Amino acid sequence: MINRLVKEIQKKNAPIVVGLDPTMKFIPGYIKENAFSVYGETLQGAGEAIWQFNKGIVDAVYDLIPAVKPQIAMYEQFGIEGMIAYKKTVDYCKSKGLVVIGDIKRGDIGSTSAAYAVGHIGKVSVGSSVFAPFDEDFVTVNPYLGTDGVKPFIDVCAEEKKGIFVLVKTSNPSSGEFQDRPIADADNRPLYEIVGQKVDEWGKSCMGEKYSYVGAVVGATYPEMGKVLRDIMPNSLILVPGYGAQGGKGADLVHFFKADGSGAIVNSSRGIIAAYQSEKYKERFSEKEYADAARAAVIEMKEDIAGALGITE
Amino acid sequence: MINRLVKEIQKKNAPIVVGLDPTMKFIPGYIKENAFSVYGETLQGAGEAIWQFNKGIVDAVYDLIPAVKPQIAMYEQFGIEGMIAYKKTVDYCKSKGLVVIGDIKRGDIGSTSAAYAVGHIGKVSVGSSVFAPFDEDFVTVNPYLGTDGVKPFIDVCAEEKKGIFVLVKTSNPSSGEFQDRPIADADNRPLYEIVGQKVDEWGKSCMGEKYSYVGAVVGATYPEMGKVLRDIMPNSLILVPGYGAQGGKGADLVHFFKADGSGAIVNSSRGIIAAYQSEKYKERFSEKEYADAARAAVIEMKEDIAGALGITE
Repeated sequence: MINRLVKEIQKKNAPIVVGLDPTMKFIPGYIKENAFSVYGETLQGAGEAIWQFNKGIVDAVYDLIPAVKPQIAMYEQFGIEGMIAYKKTVDYCKSKGLVVIGDIKRGDIGSTSAAYAVGHIGKVSVGSSVFAPFDEDFVTVNPYLGTDGVKPFIDVCAEEKKGIFVLVKTSNPSSGEFQDRPIADADNRPLYEIVGQKVDEWGKSCMGEKYSYVGAVVGATYPEMGKVLRDIMPNSLILVPGYGAQGGKGADLVHFFKADGSGAIVNSSRGIIAAYQSEKYKERFSEKEYADAARAAVIEMKEDIAGALGITE
Repeated sequence: MINRLVKEIQKKNAPIVVGLDPTMKFIPGYIKENAFSVYGETLQGAGEAIWQFNKGIVDAVYDLIPAVKPQIAMYEQFGIEGMIAYKKTVDYCKSKGLVVIGDIKRGDIGSTSAAYAVGHIGKVSVGSSVFAPFDEDFVTVNPYLGTDGVKPFIDVCAEEKKGIFVLVKTSNPSSGEFQDRPIADADNRPLYEIVGQKVDEWGKSCMGEKYSYVGAVVGATYPEMGKVLRDIMPNSLILVPGYGAQGGKGADLVHFFKADGSGAIVNSSRGIIAAYQSEKYKERFSEKEYADAARAAVIEMKEDIAGALGITE
């Protein structure tokens, strides 16, 4: 799957992933009204509104991008009905040829991490039958529990040819509270570098053609750290959140890529899916044109990143 | 809810939580056969088997214990149908008067953590309606993302009078890989102590009568560290996994408690729910008596801990 992702990035000339993180306030009123008219103002109604909203976005942008990243929390907040909308979204995106990165940030110990791994990127047995319950292509994983917590995901990756992105340096303002602390028995290098080294080590055991099945998450908001981590993890594709609404700019992104223009994939969520609400696009696009606005925002993002990387189409 | 949990521990004289972490191999054959005869060897069949298994355990032990801790991964691995079994389990345990600690180990940034928080321990709005989707009493939270990732859970705790347990030092063998690293700008104290200090700080903003809404997870397998953390977090109830099957013993647990015998709640999962399969109990209990074996194991665990703490009933 890492080989496919790398190829799709190249083919579409777009190291871009669209974050499908729908919140009720991003969804146009008419979509909510339609959903509520059938299901009422219920969790099922919310799930239907999310699903219809996502479908519109995906239909409008799928030909431009290699991958999507649904953030499961935005679905899980609506309980079972939200999870059904998540699963529908995963399946639909795959049917449109998109690589799906489930942003689930799971991580536990031993057999518990194994349960998350089989549920999301692997297969689970029931009697003599076998199922792939959520069936994303990649998931994000939290490393706080150490190798025990990550290894079960890697085992499933190796078996299923799927992948993970391990949180190394997250994009939020307080990510440094623990991640940046200097580690005394490692020349005072920050914890995120130690985690990055582990990612590199874990990744070596399951290499694809050019990149490993084990990628890393490094926030666009910390470009200097991105530069260091790019060197520490030469085999890992870096998933870069924090572009756009969180403050990361195209020019900041150059450090996350290698000289050949590969090595990273940049996520934007709000900046794409809620583009029609932004200062920049709200004059040009009505609520009903939210998907067209998303397409315009993807094209602009593509140009911004290509410009920063000095790529011409 | 922290006040209620503390009172229930006292009332039942049992600082014990039963981990409802069902795997297919723990579930007696006849329960699986019954479930599969109705739903087939499907995810729905698995969900039904889990739910019937849990119900048997809960009916057999609810009068002895204050709380249960379902591990969501064990349900999530079966997809939507597994999540339905999780929700049924949460609701049933609450109907039996048990405090429910959802072992979800979630954690993300800002609005995403807020989504997990409202979905699990808070309320979510759909139009003018309001729902409590999963509605556990407590959840576990991963701190790797820092205050941004934890604060949204604490805000919901304050509003709903619910609680969280933050992962500080986990029970698994490789937990030290990152958690034990010496932090150079904090007198070379290990990372878990720095996280423990934050837990104490976060907890001060939302105190119950004796303990804070913000508790901590510290593994039974690291008793010396438990002793230090007990002092660092005087206001936090400590949730202690790793007893029994993972190797923690009653005698190890004394450090996690205060001199008055309060301050910790010890989890056992396999040791209780799969007791009928253990060397110790398999002669005494048949597969059909799995719930009676669980009850016997709870009574024994209670005595083991009371003995270690020097408590007599």
